[in-house]
Amino acid sequence: MLPFARVSIIGLGLIGSSIARAVRVHMPTVRLTGHDADPTVRAIADRLQLCDDIADTAGAAVTDADLVILCVPVGAVGALAAEIAPELPADAIVTDVGSSKAGVATALTASIPTRQVVPAHPVAGTENSGPEAGFPSLFHGRWCILTPLEGGDPVAAARLAAFWEALGAQVETMTPEHHDLVLAVTSHLPHLIAYTIVGTASDLETVTRSEVIKYSAGGFRDFTRIAASDPTMWRDVFLANKDAVLEMLQRFSEDLTALQRAIRWGDGDALFDLFTRTRAIRRGIIEQGQDDARPDFGRAHE
Amino acid sequence: MLPFARVSIIGLGLIGSSIARAVRVHMPTVRLTGHDADPTVRAIADRLQLCDDIADTAGAAVTDADLVILCVPVGAVGALAAEIAPELPADAIVTDVGSSKAGVATALTASIPTRQVVPAHPVAGTENSGPEAGFPSLFHGRWCILTPLEGGDPVAAARLAAFWEALGAQVETMTPEHHDLVLAVTSHLPHLIAYTIVGTASDLETVTRSEVIKYSAGGFRDFTRIAASDPTMWRDVFLANKDAVLEMLQRFSEDLTALQRAIRWGDGDALFDLFTRTRAIRRGIIEQGQDDARPDFGRAHE
Repeated sequence: MLPFARVSIIGLGLIGSSIARAVRVHMPTVRLTGHDADPTVRAIADRLQLCDDIADTAGAAVTDADLVILCVPVGAVGALAAEIAPELPADAIVTDVGSSKAGVATALTASIPTRQVVPAHPVAGTENSGPEAGFPSLFHGRWCILTPLEGGDPVAAARLAAFWEALGAQVETMTPEHHDLVLAVTSHLPHLIAYTIVGTASDLETVTRSEVIKYSAGGFRDFTRIAASDPTMWRDVFLANKDAVLEMLQRFSEDLTALQRAIRWGDGDALFDLFTRTRAIRRGIIEQGQDDARPDFGRAHE
Repeated sequence: MLPFARVSIIGLGLIGSSIARAVRVHMPTVRLTGHDADPTVRAIADRLQLCDDIADTAGAAVTDADLVILCVPVGAVGALAAEIAPELPADAIVTDVGSSKAGVATALTASIPTRQVVPAHPVAGTENSGPEAGFPSLFHGRWCILTPLEGGDPVAAARLAAFWEALGAQVETMTPEHHDLVLAVTSHLPHLIAYTIVGTASDLETVTRSEVIKYSAGGFRDFTRIAASDPTMWRDVFLANKDAVLEMLQRFSEDLTALQRAIRWGDGDALFDLFTRTRAIRRGIIEQGQDDARPDFGRAHE
């Protein structure tokens, strides 16, 4: 009763290699084929035995697949889809794991028939990259968002949902446009802000970089984690989801300006009101199991 | 060879109660007296046996102390100093734990002789508040910054440094003004930004609050932790360290605008360059033991 019997994973970084490991744990009879454009990554994947086979080309990796998962930066999806299209079995389903979805849908369907395509996005990750950073429980309790296409195959979407549920994820469905708006605020804007503040702190003249590092436990270190994420992946996300990111950024800037004004004019009540209001969201996240309930994310305190 | 034999802690929240617990562990023969303005907190402190004595007034708590530690929001330090001044032994040293230091120095020395005052700031904490949130290892490996005053007593500062080292902290000394600049970037600006983005996300019309919570693992949840910190403490910090915070905020806004422009014009190289540069700071923080080296802060993944 497996949703798929032969799964190909193209791109064996954090997400691709975590999927491979999770398939091994949860669906051990699935035949796994992998490929990565980087020969070093292929060699590591081979050594770690992430898959049954590591193919030398993306095309060769998909020839007998019934599910193909593209785990590459969103800017690389279009070219990769064109590359595998001639080798793709007519009944194979193609999906991806990209953090923006409207552009990816267009990129995939330029080369691959719409009925074979189901874009998806597992909302999970760490700040680490590469085939050695993955682990099988990455998707446990996390949400995987499917954004099925108009003219797509509902059975294909249902099988993909079953696949992600088998890996321990919860599945939700929405339009690509709504996905891109939701993720702009829950993921893209936070990354953009984290990258910015870490850059700002690096560029000061009055405070040295070594002081920034030394006293980072006052809050700054929290931002450095996501600002250590993969640069190529994130460059592509911001270029692909430009409109939604700019919209959210505009709202954030307005709110920041209002707070700046409250500080300048000594309006303690405005500050206190916001700082009280923001506690409720944290409680919701903890209650719904979307973060570690221990203080300080469960960081080690000796 | 204890630096102090009779320590009084005024304010028994996260920091005050953590100091009490740490003194118990590391200097068990010290006689500890505590006080909190809130009778409920005093009752909890009594039940938890955080101190040898819980006094009913701040004045009564300091009458036989050789070290008095004020663990209250920085806006409350001035009034508290005036309240304890008449009861303070002439050889007692008074310190605090506030996150801004220039204003605190003025507030303390308005009522207490300069030679008795050594302002300090342990750069440690969690998002939780109150006497039950404290724990004895909170200061292990963290930095405690002393900002000794002109005209202060160097021996008093040395004894306070020994006290913090006994609790497991590392001690550094700097001017109050430099402290306020350093902390504006490593702590105050991050908190301000975290509060802002959580507020922005709560106010959207196109994305529901329940979606924000559900998909928060994409990055947003990292910000909600420090945005759950104590509202009174943080209101006071921003009002007390206004100039340095506004300066850092201005730089951050400029950098954010530059990034916004790069996104709008599709300048992928500018994005990639910044995203690469910011990884080095994270490595420095990990190497210097100022954050958990495990991926994702060591969050539980089942």
